[in-house]
Amino acid sequence: MQIEKTVVGVKAQVRAWKKEGLSVGLVPTMGYLHEGHKSLIERAVKENDKVVVSVFVNPTQFGPTEDLESYPRDLNADRILCEEAGAALIFAPEASEMYAENFTTYVNTSGVTAELCGKSRPIHFRGVCTVVNKLFNIATPDRAYFGEKDAQQLAVIRRMVRDLNMNVEIVGCPIIRETDGLAKSSRNTYLSPEERQAALVLSRAIKVGKAMVQSGEKDGEKVLDEMKRIISQEPLARIDYVEMVKWDTIEIHHRVDGPILVAIAVFIGKTRLIDNFIQE
Amino acid sequence: MQIEKTVVGVKAQVRAWKKEGLSVGLVPTMGYLHEGHKSLIERAVKENDKVVVSVFVNPTQFGPTEDLESYPRDLNADRILCEEAGAALIFAPEASEMYAENFTTYVNTSGVTAELCGKSRPIHFRGVCTVVNKLFNIATPDRAYFGEKDAQQLAVIRRMVRDLNMNVEIVGCPIIRETDGLAKSSRNTYLSPEERQAALVLSRAIKVGKAMVQSGEKDGEKVLDEMKRIISQEPLARIDYVEMVKWDTIEIHHRVDGPILVAIAVFIGKTRLIDNFIQE
Repeated sequence: MQIEKTVVGVKAQVRAWKKEGLSVGLVPTMGYLHEGHKSLIERAVKENDKVVVSVFVNPTQFGPTEDLESYPRDLNADRILCEEAGAALIFAPEASEMYAENFTTYVNTSGVTAELCGKSRPIHFRGVCTVVNKLFNIATPDRAYFGEKDAQQLAVIRRMVRDLNMNVEIVGCPIIRETDGLAKSSRNTYLSPEERQAALVLSRAIKVGKAMVQSGEKDGEKVLDEMKRIISQEPLARIDYVEMVKWDTIEIHHRVDGPILVAIAVFIGKTRLIDNFIQE
Repeated sequence: MQIEKTVVGVKAQVRAWKKEGLSVGLVPTMGYLHEGHKSLIERAVKENDKVVVSVFVNPTQFGPTEDLESYPRDLNADRILCEEAGAALIFAPEASEMYAENFTTYVNTSGVTAELCGKSRPIHFRGVCTVVNKLFNIATPDRAYFGEKDAQQLAVIRRMVRDLNMNVEIVGCPIIRETDGLAKSSRNTYLSPEERQAALVLSRAIKVGKAMVQSGEKDGEKVLDEMKRIISQEPLARIDYVEMVKWDTIEIHHRVDGPILVAIAVFIGKTRLIDNFIQE
């Protein structure tokens, strides 16, 4: 497996593959890869001849008070996981390779970014759209793979690809969880042992909400109230949002009468975690 | 020559060409084609196996008080000119084909859009970047051709392509003029006979400014003052801007000590015309 640090390096390799008629899958990540990422890579390997994994902690999607500096990094471990999963190339650029000194172009999607994480993290999705747009242009994948854990991100990327007529199929993949239910996340490493235990309140709330919806509850308020009640019982937890929105326009919608996303963001101590379920 | 109204139609045709190993040139236009456009198409035909001309009066680059509705259109004449020039395909979509009802994604470039037309027309370049980005994704050209008459647009597109790592070479082509000097523009059709005469003040000012720079004048103020003096002698003319900027960052710079762009925008009656010269 190849590790590339430069845009021209990736472009040259992908061009060579395309010339041979090979299909390319892309898995964009911020590294510190876990089983969730691995499931994306394995799916991509199944569906494409060559798989590119990008490992890039993208500065433009972090707010000034967020965890850009402390975000965990371990390229060596990432390399091993990618190799095991069958990736052909890791693209691991420096920030200066992705953002020249006088970089001034951004891609932004409104509406679908107004609620949930877009509300709590104002510049977040502008950074996500911009870097993903760049990665699509660099790797020119036939398919790109995103986890449903970042459900709003998935909706935002789908909207960008549709609106800008981009030539890539976006594949959403299910959330991967620890055996006790906690959704896998690179940010889980921030948690102390007590916090790790407290963090189970997210998946517990998701499980209860999902069960209510699946057993026929149509009233969104009732579902959200019950989920909030569960989370509020955990002293280390502080709710950022607990919301029901249309899947995939991400408009607030408290009625289960079509595809919906129920998404939560909860601070456990200083660590902000997210979880969700989608009811198609 | 083929006329396509749909994105999927163009994508399918271009994909077929690429499969045959053919190169593709794109000439994005708003239609009502003149000799300036024709020179772009002919250049593209020389340098590529197949040339796509897009004819689309893009609503998102017009401000609310601008001439979107009255902008001249004549697809039949455009078809004849494209055919003569050797284009293979015209892409002439309806606005609804380019902008779905819940379209919410825009590409924007700051800095390089702050002065000149970007200052006079606040949302203009956001619309230009967005539609050109879409056209690049639809036609996936190897090369795209833009006239130097819209010099700032050329700089903005180059910045977007660089920043977003787009896979297209941007080719700038010289201004084409009427025999009396007036830069060719679809908007020249707005001019009454008296205004048409008055409009010559633009190219006269450009000619004088260019001669001053070429004969060694380094002081931008002197050049601009002389150009303003010339334009102010024409009673039907009202200056929007007369500026010297760095080529190609488009920062105000009144010293000829590197590549510069001298650009002017002048209202002749209600019609806003632009002209410029570039000193590399």
